[in-house]
Amino acid sequence: MKTSTVAELLSKDITLQDIEIKGWVRTFRANRFIALNDGSTLHNIQCVVDFENTDEAILKRINTGAAVHIKGELVESQGKGQRVEIQVNTIDILGDSDADEYPIQPKKHSFEFLRENAHLRTRTNTFSAVMRLRSSLSFAVHKYFNDNGFYYMHTPIITGSDAEGAGEMFKVSALDSKNPPLKEDGNVDYTKDFFGKETNLTVSGQLEAETYAMSLGKVYTFGPTFRAENSNTSRHLAEFWMIEPEVAFMDLAGNMDLAEDFMKSVLSYVLEHNQDDLKFLEQRLLDEEKTKPQVERSEMSLIEKLKFVVDNNFKRVSYTEAIDILKNCKPNKKKKFNFIIEEWGADLQSEHERFLVEKHFKCPVILFDYPANIKAFYMRLNEDGKTVRAMDILFPGIGEMVGGSQREERLDVLKEKMKTLDIDEKELWWYLDLRKYGTAVHSGFGLGFERLVMFATGMGNIRDVIPYPRTPQNAEF
Amino acid sequence: MKTSTVAELLSKDITLQDIEIKGWVRTFRANRFIALNDGSTLHNIQCVVDFENTDEAILKRINTGAAVHIKGELVESQGKGQRVEIQVNTIDILGDSDADEYPIQPKKHSFEFLRENAHLRTRTNTFSAVMRLRSSLSFAVHKYFNDNGFYYMHTPIITGSDAEGAGEMFKVSALDSKNPPLKEDGNVDYTKDFFGKETNLTVSGQLEAETYAMSLGKVYTFGPTFRAENSNTSRHLAEFWMIEPEVAFMDLAGNMDLAEDFMKSVLSYVLEHNQDDLKFLEQRLLDEEKTKPQVERSEMSLIEKLKFVVDNNFKRVSYTEAIDILKNCKPNKKKKFNFIIEEWGADLQSEHERFLVEKHFKCPVILFDYPANIKAFYMRLNEDGKTVRAMDILFPGIGEMVGGSQREERLDVLKEKMKTLDIDEKELWWYLDLRKYGTAVHSGFGLGFERLVMFATGMGNIRDVIPYPRTPQNAEF
Repeated sequence: MKTSTVAELLSKDITLQDIEIKGWVRTFRANRFIALNDGSTLHNIQCVVDFENTDEAILKRINTGAAVHIKGELVESQGKGQRVEIQVNTIDILGDSDADEYPIQPKKHSFEFLRENAHLRTRTNTFSAVMRLRSSLSFAVHKYFNDNGFYYMHTPIITGSDAEGAGEMFKVSALDSKNPPLKEDGNVDYTKDFFGKETNLTVSGQLEAETYAMSLGKVYTFGPTFRAENSNTSRHLAEFWMIEPEVAFMDLAGNMDLAEDFMKSVLSYVLEHNQDDLKFLEQRLLDEEKTKPQVERSEMSLIEKLKFVVDNNFKRVSYTEAIDILKNCKPNKKKKFNFIIEEWGADLQSEHERFLVEKHFKCPVILFDYPANIKAFYMRLNEDGKTVRAMDILFPGIGEMVGGSQREERLDVLKEKMKTLDIDEKELWWYLDLRKYGTAVHSGFGLGFERLVMFATGMGNIRDVIPYPRTPQNAEF
Repeated sequence: MKTSTVAELLSKDITLQDIEIKGWVRTFRANRFIALNDGSTLHNIQCVVDFENTDEAILKRINTGAAVHIKGELVESQGKGQRVEIQVNTIDILGDSDADEYPIQPKKHSFEFLRENAHLRTRTNTFSAVMRLRSSLSFAVHKYFNDNGFYYMHTPIITGSDAEGAGEMFKVSALDSKNPPLKEDGNVDYTKDFFGKETNLTVSGQLEAETYAMSLGKVYTFGPTFRAENSNTSRHLAEFWMIEPEVAFMDLAGNMDLAEDFMKSVLSYVLEHNQDDLKFLEQRLLDEEKTKPQVERSEMSLIEKLKFVVDNNFKRVSYTEAIDILKNCKPNKKKKFNFIIEEWGADLQSEHERFLVEKHFKCPVILFDYPANIKAFYMRLNEDGKTVRAMDILFPGIGEMVGGSQREERLDVLKEKMKTLDIDEKELWWYLDLRKYGTAVHSGFGLGFERLVMFATGMGNIRDVIPYPRTPQNAEF
């Protein structure tokens, strides 16, 4: 007899004899009704125990969290709330769960408590829904790129290059940290380390992805990246997953089209495939927002927000236009911003981005053509000599979701820029080679996957959308 | 006018006016025929230049490696070797390639030379085919699990736990490596480090995957893992990608079924979707093997080998049976093995595995029920008290492809085992919790993705199936 899953049985509308199911007890009430979950769906299946003919000792062990093996019949439910239920013939306790000790009792737990029990938190509806959505979004990412002729590329995690400049890096070493070998000048002698040089955890796979784009045409990465920055916020992780497509012969306009189409496609995918989980998370968000002042509540529900992104064009606005809007907006004039926008060239802060997206345009916004001196060395200089073909995509409630650019394809301009910024050409000889041999316009972007999961699930803290978050002072599990 | 890809145009069998294409020159012969490649397929498209009406200065710049933009017409080819070709109307040189300097000349390069130029090696047929296959296999992995109700889980890369015991680990730190803070006893004070404790790069996501299997039912990981072992062989990397499914309520027999079905499915996928690349790699392997003595050549071609795996059952053999076979085999009796098999309990070496797979059974073999003391602490002890429900899947030419087990689900037995091996219970409190609350039979396995890519591509060195290999003394790019 094949063991069925809850998802399979709930999709039936016929009576079935001799079914078998294994799962965990969510609740057991009236000595009769087990709500059984096996992770295959958000929903539990009701299993009705014939308590008069069941051993008392067994009944006492049907606790929340216990693993059980049930044999019985799938029948039309007599009660409300479910179409079908299982009439239990036999129940075996596979693994007990002490009712006094089990941390995940059937009541509301704080997210902070659940973070401390992250190994058990997917036994709650909220976290099982979040992690199923995360999985579904991951698949949607791979499917989108595969369907569109991109090749998936695994860029290196350990890197000998620290020239990417995207942030503080973690060091990777196999040396004895207490007594590392030293050079004559007193510095650590990394020639004695595993790789024969100083190595770090990557902050981005972009530069390596460019090498593959310039031969395979369209590639993407989807892997872990790292920042050793002491940012203890609800939006930052020390270890997070990043998606980075890179395309040869594509300019900045094409890059915007790609990013917008990509975002719409993956969100459509979960709207289609994850309705149950989304409906649950939508209700959770509504409940959470009821505790907040009216002004902080969303105008749209979770599913409405996702549909809004799928159905509407992203607003494309140049940095220069954005500065004009910000200079003349009320919060700037009334000095409500922490950083007052006074002139062109200012770096936009989160408060400005939020104003543009949430108050002014009320939709996802693509800002482009930023001042060169606030952006990375590899971005394509415009003909005006002062802006670069950069783009940031800003999302309501999340802020920056995507950062991308057309890359500087001209060897002389790139070398000049690296010289100005004191980036060693020898470190990036291979990156420069791409501009020496068959260079061409190319572009790409990076998208922090956890930000996308936050948007799609309505979760407010990035620690709650990744299985085991890594943050300052925390590498538990 | 939309730019076409080579793959699109080669699939047409009609004449097309006003087509446009961008790519890189592979060869230019007779001042007339460009073989153009853009990575979308192994194949080049022939572009015929009207040299009498093309600027001499342009013709001189059509070198191997140059990026060009061609406008013209797709016509039936007059020559042999292709059905269609492009009659060039205009050609623009987007990026030059100096014929004297460009490393990737149209001739045979050694793999060693190409490893030193790994940023350019996908501009060769061999490496573009390998990396397209790698990408396709990755997608097949995700598709298989998605189609079969598994959730993809991103297990942490930085880990505070060193109890997994799968190998030497790299240390991760943000401390000043020259002058780390020290405790009174002279050891490094990791409470001052980023995570407040000593952290390493993960060797496996299994233990964390178990936590999710015990709530979501069926999960898998597919991410980078690390070994700081000084193994300078053609089969080891310091950084490699691992696939680790983990399933609740599944025993060792189910684990074998899953692994076999999975391998067959992903290999079928590439047989169906990557015929061109496989045919090319098959021919490459044949050419390579011609240089070897007859005895070292494969009996089957690459595609035959893949089909053989897809079409035949894996042979399931207990460790005890395998020892019997080995004890009595010719190479053991004639002392041809480096390690002579004398009695039950011996750890099998690569030479023994190869004998079983390549000489004795001549098919993939699943060895199971190994002696407990040569396997990891988390494997399910059999009722005999001396063997564990472990399995290794051995492949011809590759050796161990998969290692897995049913996990020890009994709290008391697991704790006893950890005590014997001096593994701190406090380190793995969360892992033990899984046995306290709703424990159940569960199983999983790990598969080194690069081994799979080697098997599917016929490449002999693991450094040639990952974009930027990390090995002792090498973290270039």
